[in-house]
Amino acid sequence: MKKNTKLIEFKEYLTKIEYLTTIEGVLYWDMRVNVPSKGVSDRGDILAYMSVEKYKLQTSDKMKEYIDYFINDDSLDFQDKKMVLNCKKEYELNSKIPEDRNKAYALAVAKSETAWEKAKQENDFEVFKPYLKEMIDFNREFVNYWGYKDNKYDTLLNIYEPGITVDKLDTIFNDLKNGIIDLLDKIKSSSEVINSSVFNKKFSKESQEEFSKFVLEKIGYDFEAGRLDETEHPFTIEFGNRDVRITTHYYQEDFKSALFSCIHEGGHGIYEQDIPDGLKGTLLGKGTSMGIHESQSRFYENILGRSLSFWKYFYPEAIKRFPQFEGVSLDEFYKGINEVKTSLIRTESDELTYSLHIIIRYELEKALINGELEIDDIKDAWNKKYKEYLNIEPSNDSEGILQDMHWSGGSFGYFPSYALGNLYGAQFLYKMKKEIPNIYDEIENGNFEIIHKYLNEKIHKYGSTLDPVEIIKLATGEELNSKYFIDYLNEKYKDIYKI
Amino acid sequence: MKKNTKLIEFKEYLTKIEYLTTIEGVLYWDMRVNVPSKGVSDRGDILAYMSVEKYKLQTSDKMKEYIDYFINDDSLDFQDKKMVLNCKKEYELNSKIPEDRNKAYALAVAKSETAWEKAKQENDFEVFKPYLKEMIDFNREFVNYWGYKDNKYDTLLNIYEPGITVDKLDTIFNDLKNGIIDLLDKIKSSSEVINSSVFNKKFSKESQEEFSKFVLEKIGYDFEAGRLDETEHPFTIEFGNRDVRITTHYYQEDFKSALFSCIHEGGHGIYEQDIPDGLKGTLLGKGTSMGIHESQSRFYENILGRSLSFWKYFYPEAIKRFPQFEGVSLDEFYKGINEVKTSLIRTESDELTYSLHIIIRYELEKALINGELEIDDIKDAWNKKYKEYLNIEPSNDSEGILQDMHWSGGSFGYFPSYALGNLYGAQFLYKMKKEIPNIYDEIENGNFEIIHKYLNEKIHKYGSTLDPVEIIKLATGEELNSKYFIDYLNEKYKDIYKI
Repeated sequence: MKKNTKLIEFKEYLTKIEYLTTIEGVLYWDMRVNVPSKGVSDRGDILAYMSVEKYKLQTSDKMKEYIDYFINDDSLDFQDKKMVLNCKKEYELNSKIPEDRNKAYALAVAKSETAWEKAKQENDFEVFKPYLKEMIDFNREFVNYWGYKDNKYDTLLNIYEPGITVDKLDTIFNDLKNGIIDLLDKIKSSSEVINSSVFNKKFSKESQEEFSKFVLEKIGYDFEAGRLDETEHPFTIEFGNRDVRITTHYYQEDFKSALFSCIHEGGHGIYEQDIPDGLKGTLLGKGTSMGIHESQSRFYENILGRSLSFWKYFYPEAIKRFPQFEGVSLDEFYKGINEVKTSLIRTESDELTYSLHIIIRYELEKALINGELEIDDIKDAWNKKYKEYLNIEPSNDSEGILQDMHWSGGSFGYFPSYALGNLYGAQFLYKMKKEIPNIYDEIENGNFEIIHKYLNEKIHKYGSTLDPVEIIKLATGEELNSKYFIDYLNEKYKDIYKI
Repeated sequence: MKKNTKLIEFKEYLTKIEYLTTIEGVLYWDMRVNVPSKGVSDRGDILAYMSVEKYKLQTSDKMKEYIDYFINDDSLDFQDKKMVLNCKKEYELNSKIPEDRNKAYALAVAKSETAWEKAKQENDFEVFKPYLKEMIDFNREFVNYWGYKDNKYDTLLNIYEPGITVDKLDTIFNDLKNGIIDLLDKIKSSSEVINSSVFNKKFSKESQEEFSKFVLEKIGYDFEAGRLDETEHPFTIEFGNRDVRITTHYYQEDFKSALFSCIHEGGHGIYEQDIPDGLKGTLLGKGTSMGIHESQSRFYENILGRSLSFWKYFYPEAIKRFPQFEGVSLDEFYKGINEVKTSLIRTESDELTYSLHIIIRYELEKALINGELEIDDIKDAWNKKYKEYLNIEPSNDSEGILQDMHWSGGSFGYFPSYALGNLYGAQFLYKMKKEIPNIYDEIENGNFEIIHKYLNEKIHKYGSTLDPVEIIKLATGEELNSKYFIDYLNEKYKDIYKI
């Protein structure tokens, strides 16, 4: 067979995998948004079936044949080379685990997730503990199959954020931790009092939805290639680049929750909508990593969405729509959406303390995977770190170690992406300000197109053809450095808290 | 391999086909309800892919092997025997067509549907004519592959309504036609004037939706195993028996359209929700034919939903919700929803004249498939029959021969099911009134459970284990007879039009 024909055939094969990914996605989205209660169990069966079908394609002899055929082919162009490498990585991730262990893991995950739900409801870590131990054991076992160099945890990090290692993260997160804690101390001794009670007046679901759509449209989310629906927890899901959906949850007595989650998911969505058509059939047509994805969602949500310039533009519209804000000045509004308040729950935390929640999980995961921390000590370790870094302690398991579902699904190595997103974002901002010095004026005038274009040019258009380390280097000229985020935070809160 | 193991394996195979059917269904429903404009083309690609995957399973050597293994096995129980027969029928339908002709047909259908849309918009049959000719040619060709006994059109009828033949339909439809035309003449000379302008006041979408849901819930549609959404055209789609969705379209200045389409689709939905779990994995877990399905939807929409008893129960609630009905008596309301008005458009026609629209299509299709009518004469033939039976003539193609999309998709033999639904329904009613003499009192008191239970017991619970001829025989003790529907119509309109 001619090489060209083989390459076309390979891409057709990958297109099938992309189709199955979309199908899985539609079935999942529909389950979250639409499936009536009695239909949930049948839908679960079909999702499990689809996941097996996809796994078969990903790990088939055919796939191995394609990879072996092309892996040393120097005549491939840049994009096709990356495609082959990416397939190889995925193939090894999937095929190095013995089939029976993989099956056992899938079953264990399903049970563990159910146990976590129950434990959270009953507010009792003991219910979840044996399942969490199993998840940790599986991850430890899998790392051995996959292999590792310096640190076992590197192997897991690499799944979600290629190129990131414990060695790098220890430095980055240590600087970040110190930077945040210093700033937090200053804020605590500030006499500035922020009153944010206005956000807890009653805001109808309809009015929140309309305003969220208004903002999303302005910042560049394309409703002709997407839609906004309501689910229990917000998420973004893409079925290719022309159908990228976001969800949120409306709380009538919380103006901020849905709006900022919409802007957050909108950032993810804009990234996926910008992926070029040319990447279809390569598996590279999606955001490159969890961390870079979070950099986009957090850029939109926080750097942009919680900036004074953003609200100089949007606040007049907000006042027009919401009489609840009568008598609230722009300055009060701005301070209200940036109030710092140490809290026990990651997803409710403010822009400053958020990363501390992540660093706690990082330190625990690293120790767990390396066998330096065991299941019996994990709850104590959790509570101790919250006391040490945030000076608060959970009064029960649900607001402590049971708050996040990630571990119940066996996802270790995922959490750091959230904090990395903050760091990447601030580093992009630093460079953006150099290249577009009047950027805040543009925002004030509602010119979000200039930002969208910039992010597309520097990040989105590459899809997964570049790794995060390559993206950050190319976009900002240097490696990831936590300095930019710490500087950004200091500058921001200096004004807000007059410190 | 032991026979039992083989049977289990066979059912696992059929379960896969059921999964693919559900997946296709979810992708289709989502396209109609949710997909943003830019995503439509990608979704089309994936639907085409899924259809091929399903076709492969339906026509595989494996399928043939199972059928051959079990087809003469007398030890199978009743249900499993029917399962094998059903698979054989489907297998032959699919596999008797040469693969290249099947592909050519799929491509031609896609083009033809697009051409029909364009032709309808431009109000020009000439645009659609060559494509319609192709659809007719394909159907003529396929009938030859499939084979036929007495009449070529029987083969197509049999796809949608097993057991129904031209021989039977000619008699049934002839009686029906005469019965309707007689009654129509009487109504035309009645001096009774019905004023239905109140239904064209303004009714908000929200209030229509809420009332439709209220009615649906009362009559037995289970929202925990279903949902109601809005689409351009109403339809019902089932993903197993625990997720059966219906759709409607709201018109602000038409109270009747959405409400009665909801009750209609609700009838389809209740049928599918009642299918027993035990039929999973047999391909028999769905309504048995188009005609029986229509009998249920039309029973709920017309026999029940347009009866005086029904509105004795619901009208007080309607008045409470809709001040638009102030001053309109129950009697006026009842007459308004039963106004007879010959119209050009099938989907807008009343309960009486509806079947005439179907008989016209039946007569044309029969002649087309048997080569007694050719494409150049079809438009004239259409218009002539409308003049003859309904005494009206289309002033343009869109309200004439272009009004329905069925032919553009190559569906010949489907239309008769609609009228058969009316006939089955009235025959069920006749028997139901014998068995539950006070049935209208029950309806008046809102006891819809008694009807739901009856229809479940006589029809729904069998899924596709019984053919329509078996269902009607078992439920009513005799073969299909148009007399019951004609009697029902006469009795109903006698009161309304005082004739």
